[in-house]
Amino acid sequence: MISSTSLFDPVELDLRLLTDNLKQLISARHPILGAAAEHLFEAGGKRLRPAIVLLVSRATMLDQDLTPRHRRLAEITEMIHTASLVHDDVVDEADLRRNVPTVNNLFDNRIAVLAGDFLFAQSSWYLANLDNLQVVKLLSEVIRDFAEGEILQSINRFDVDISLESYLEKSYYKTASLIANSAKAAGVLSDVSDETAEQLYGYGRDLGLAFQIVDDILDFTSPTEILGKPAGSDLISGNITAPVLFAMEENPELVTLIDREFKQKGDIEQALQIVNESQGIDRARELAGYHAKLAVKQLECLKPSGASRSLFELADYVLSRLY
Amino acid sequence: MISSTSLFDPVELDLRLLTDNLKQLISARHPILGAAAEHLFEAGGKRLRPAIVLLVSRATMLDQDLTPRHRRLAEITEMIHTASLVHDDVVDEADLRRNVPTVNNLFDNRIAVLAGDFLFAQSSWYLANLDNLQVVKLLSEVIRDFAEGEILQSINRFDVDISLESYLEKSYYKTASLIANSAKAAGVLSDVSDETAEQLYGYGRDLGLAFQIVDDILDFTSPTEILGKPAGSDLISGNITAPVLFAMEENPELVTLIDREFKQKGDIEQALQIVNESQGIDRARELAGYHAKLAVKQLECLKPSGASRSLFELADYVLSRLY
Repeated sequence: MISSTSLFDPVELDLRLLTDNLKQLISARHPILGAAAEHLFEAGGKRLRPAIVLLVSRATMLDQDLTPRHRRLAEITEMIHTASLVHDDVVDEADLRRNVPTVNNLFDNRIAVLAGDFLFAQSSWYLANLDNLQVVKLLSEVIRDFAEGEILQSINRFDVDISLESYLEKSYYKTASLIANSAKAAGVLSDVSDETAEQLYGYGRDLGLAFQIVDDILDFTSPTEILGKPAGSDLISGNITAPVLFAMEENPELVTLIDREFKQKGDIEQALQIVNESQGIDRARELAGYHAKLAVKQLECLKPSGASRSLFELADYVLSRLY
Repeated sequence: MISSTSLFDPVELDLRLLTDNLKQLISARHPILGAAAEHLFEAGGKRLRPAIVLLVSRATMLDQDLTPRHRRLAEITEMIHTASLVHDDVVDEADLRRNVPTVNNLFDNRIAVLAGDFLFAQSSWYLANLDNLQVVKLLSEVIRDFAEGEILQSINRFDVDISLESYLEKSYYKTASLIANSAKAAGVLSDVSDETAEQLYGYGRDLGLAFQIVDDILDFTSPTEILGKPAGSDLISGNITAPVLFAMEENPELVTLIDREFKQKGDIEQALQIVNESQGIDRARELAGYHAKLAVKQLECLKPSGASRSLFELADYVLSRLY
């Protein structure tokens, strides 16, 4: 597995600055949220989203330093992402995330709703003060997509008729939209051409889809100690992801089990066994590989640099999480 | 008591259109939220906030019709307000609001967090698409202030050292900021002078403060059937409002009761009796009257019209809720 640390070398210092800024931003104002913030921004996140923003920024500002706006955009990206995680955990009643207790678990729902609202609100405010209407629109789209994705996921629980297209749509809303729109926004702040901006968007979208598909595979294949939750927990809660969609095509018995919402004893164990013995995980891996390849193709607009190389290698890194 | 219906005559049709639009906006996309939206936008709200936006819009567009942007701003205002109520009710674990079951009660916390996020997200998106950076900044300030106000209220529960200034600050964040910034934004959309924009902001701020103080008085003086919750419920939950602040000055026994968080039997009843027998409610009423007067003074920038007359009379209407 490729280490994300060496991959992020070109923006290592930028990322350290970002983490300090984010913690200070929140702790300074509210001790009550400070503990939650410290917890949130320390919780071993990969900083993937701000890293992409910073790498795109460096790759499109080759002869110049990053502007404070590029840095702020990276911070906004991480704030929006974190806010969505905090509210997701309330909605899903999750106790652990990456093996670390969630805010709703460590504190309570009240603090978790407040902390999420505060982060969303802060990000809206910083966003408006970037003074760039196009960037405001791109990121407000993301916030809207998050809400949409979470709702779609709620609606489609245990819906065995969900199509691959619907799954990809939901994955776009939940994951790829933020990466796509923030990569494009970083380009916009660097004054790239409209064509380049679109390609950066496309890179982020396909990388984000690959990332989500890989996450959905890991939910089945990772040991519980690493996930911090039981294997197959997405499926158990009725969230139908790529491996399951492919496995259902192969084995209609799985459809029956999901359709009755695992009401009978042994249903869950049987369903997990069917997925694991099917081609579902292999086919999902292929789908992730397809999107990773599409992502890389759209980077041709960038001149060679350390940062653009990292963006290329990120596509492999995303897939390498499977090995 | 003045009827808000006749007060809102100049914008009655506008308000009807707004309600239809808001319901459609949400129900059309998500049946799951449709029920919540129908419930939210039907729940007998006074539409005070969008009415003020529409009245300011009409009062500053005398010879012209409202633009779609003015209408959209009014919708955004109601969406932000409603989103904040929905999350407030989760945070406060409230079962009723205006005698109607809350979303978290009727559905559950999950749907309530989602519905609030969806409304905030929609409003951010519509806001960005008003294509006016100044208006985006004004309203993103409001969203930030809401989160701030809710946090301050959480932090200051049972804090007997809270000052009148802190109380007014919290009331500004929770209530007045939205009215002030959206009144100003309506003026900005009508291209008023900077001076008029500031006066509209001042009108909204003082009217909003008066409104919040009156609400805080009604929490003590309204019959339970009208409030839909027991009298004094703010104080019982540790939220120290104007009547209590004044009553504490008069009777130190009240400080003791609050400071021990009503731990002993009969504490609550005794505290409520002290507030009711003190000058607290009268002094709070005076404070509300002071801000209502300040609000009206700042309307001198407007030319006479049906809409500007309604804005004037709104100040009396706010106070008349006490009789």
